[in-house]
Amino acid sequence: METIDDVGEFGLIARIQARLPLTEPGPAGGEVLVPSGDDAAVLAIPDGRLVTSTDLLLEGRHFRRDWSSARDVGHKAAAQNFSDIAAMGGVPTSLLLSLVLPGDLPVAWVEEFADGVAAECAPLGAVVAGGDLVRGDLITISVTVFGTLEGRAPVLRSGARPGDAVCVAGRLGWSAAGLELLAAGSPGAGEAGPGGSEADFLLAHRRPAPPYAAGPEAARAGATAMLDVSDGLLADLEHLAVAGRVAVDVESALVPIAPGLRLDQVLTGGEDHALVATFAPDAPLPAGWRRIGSVHAGPPAVTVDGKPWDGPGGFSHFGKY
Amino acid sequence: METIDDVGEFGLIARIQARLPLTEPGPAGGEVLVPSGDDAAVLAIPDGRLVTSTDLLLEGRHFRRDWSSARDVGHKAAAQNFSDIAAMGGVPTSLLLSLVLPGDLPVAWVEEFADGVAAECAPLGAVVAGGDLVRGDLITISVTVFGTLEGRAPVLRSGARPGDAVCVAGRLGWSAAGLELLAAGSPGAGEAGPGGSEADFLLAHRRPAPPYAAGPEAARAGATAMLDVSDGLLADLEHLAVAGRVAVDVESALVPIAPGLRLDQVLTGGEDHALVATFAPDAPLPAGWRRIGSVHAGPPAVTVDGKPWDGPGGFSHFGKY
Repeated sequence: METIDDVGEFGLIARIQARLPLTEPGPAGGEVLVPSGDDAAVLAIPDGRLVTSTDLLLEGRHFRRDWSSARDVGHKAAAQNFSDIAAMGGVPTSLLLSLVLPGDLPVAWVEEFADGVAAECAPLGAVVAGGDLVRGDLITISVTVFGTLEGRAPVLRSGARPGDAVCVAGRLGWSAAGLELLAAGSPGAGEAGPGGSEADFLLAHRRPAPPYAAGPEAARAGATAMLDVSDGLLADLEHLAVAGRVAVDVESALVPIAPGLRLDQVLTGGEDHALVATFAPDAPLPAGWRRIGSVHAGPPAVTVDGKPWDGPGGFSHFGKY
Repeated sequence: METIDDVGEFGLIARIQARLPLTEPGPAGGEVLVPSGDDAAVLAIPDGRLVTSTDLLLEGRHFRRDWSSARDVGHKAAAQNFSDIAAMGGVPTSLLLSLVLPGDLPVAWVEEFADGVAAECAPLGAVVAGGDLVRGDLITISVTVFGTLEGRAPVLRSGARPGDAVCVAGRLGWSAAGLELLAAGSPGAGEAGPGGSEADFLLAHRRPAPPYAAGPEAARAGATAMLDVSDGLLADLEHLAVAGRVAVDVESALVPIAPGLRLDQVLTGGEDHALVATFAPDAPLPAGWRRIGSVHAGPPAVTVDGKPWDGPGGFSHFGKY
């Protein structure tokens, strides 16, 4: 099988560039004025403000090649970062993509990874503005994403007020259920799952599907605080509670539990990149959002039905700063 | 010695944040509207255009802990990226900094690395807008830098015209000479060199000193093309020749060769991050710039005194796209 060592530096760059959306300006305002190939890229920022976030993904820690296809990893690398843009109320426009790649890695893996990134970018109109390639022993992916607020104020984590409704958009617990299936020996990368819902959970783990449009829609509807659920609903609500100096109570009867899922998966499962936001009590919710609880005055805390959650816990590693 | 495993995720983040210039707006226009700590950062981009570049640095490939101190690596990680902003005629304003760190790494290494980044940022007024921390086996550094064009047009690689003067600002060959000394067993990290110039070359390798101000000055003076010398003067002039579809001749008698250096080090040594630019033949050169050759009509080529260079060659690994 053809490897990276076989095609060399410039061959590899050409193969990747052929598959990424490199230079077309996106509909969302991320026009690339100077594309990759010069010392630096130049991007048009008509809003005058840049929303940006960055993540590192390591093989073995954030993905496994026997559990996820290269295309899955490409989807996930882009999605988990674009989700951070949506969580500010922004629209993703472009990204930088840097890769550490072993010399004996099949070129096909890199091509399919690029296809996954491109497929995640396509419905958003987002483009790849550049990156860096380095030879190394372990596949490492660095993604930096950019987005625009389209003239709106960013929605911060810190704005929740007592009386606000706590609401979610997107899936909860799906990725965690898929991960449990994989850990229990369910089908590996590329294979079909044994049944409808198991296949859905596996796919959700391999390719998170953040509700991108729900972020800007929440901002337009006056969301007072918002963040994306990367570590788990309760863990991320704790960030919201601490940042806003408020108490949050989740009503378990209101939490959407998809058939086949358990409450603890929905409350503590990470990596679905649902959005959680707070809205004034009388605010009409945009489509796709549903209320799951309330904000209260009090020391920062997160409770479920008025009590601390004592079931299985969240997910933590080194994180963003 | 206290390790990363000892202090844990939040302890480590606090240690790093205490040493980085995190939230103060820079004088160059890189105001951080929403600092690190939310889903994404929001930066003010008053120019309406963003200059951005990104690099990965791996231990063992881009730096060695026995040859460079943590502070050196911090300086270098920031400098080699800021240099790309200057090479577009821009001014660095901020950066994102992500790290893969082994759990048994001394916290002091990370703190001193952060001090090096901060020291490189300080004279530029640049700030750190966020990042990501991940546990892993090999120190890996991902830097994404941002800069502003301050209303000027970017200076591309492709603008050289026949008749233009080829000019440089900054050091050539110093880093290569320092690397040769280290490879030959000269003093390791933190120790003083045996003599004035050797110490200078060692320091130049550990902490490149790009002539940041020369980039915007060249842009204001009408530079027709510009790039930074990361792979070596001749190798990078080849990028300029190919992009502009011109021939470039370097006159060896005009090339600045610091005492203690050889011509081949000056022509082919990388990583000093000098700037090379072309100017119209009658354009007065800004301070710090000197002519070393000329642009000619013809198929893309780089010659020295009218002949292809047949001495020791350049430097190449996977690279930017």
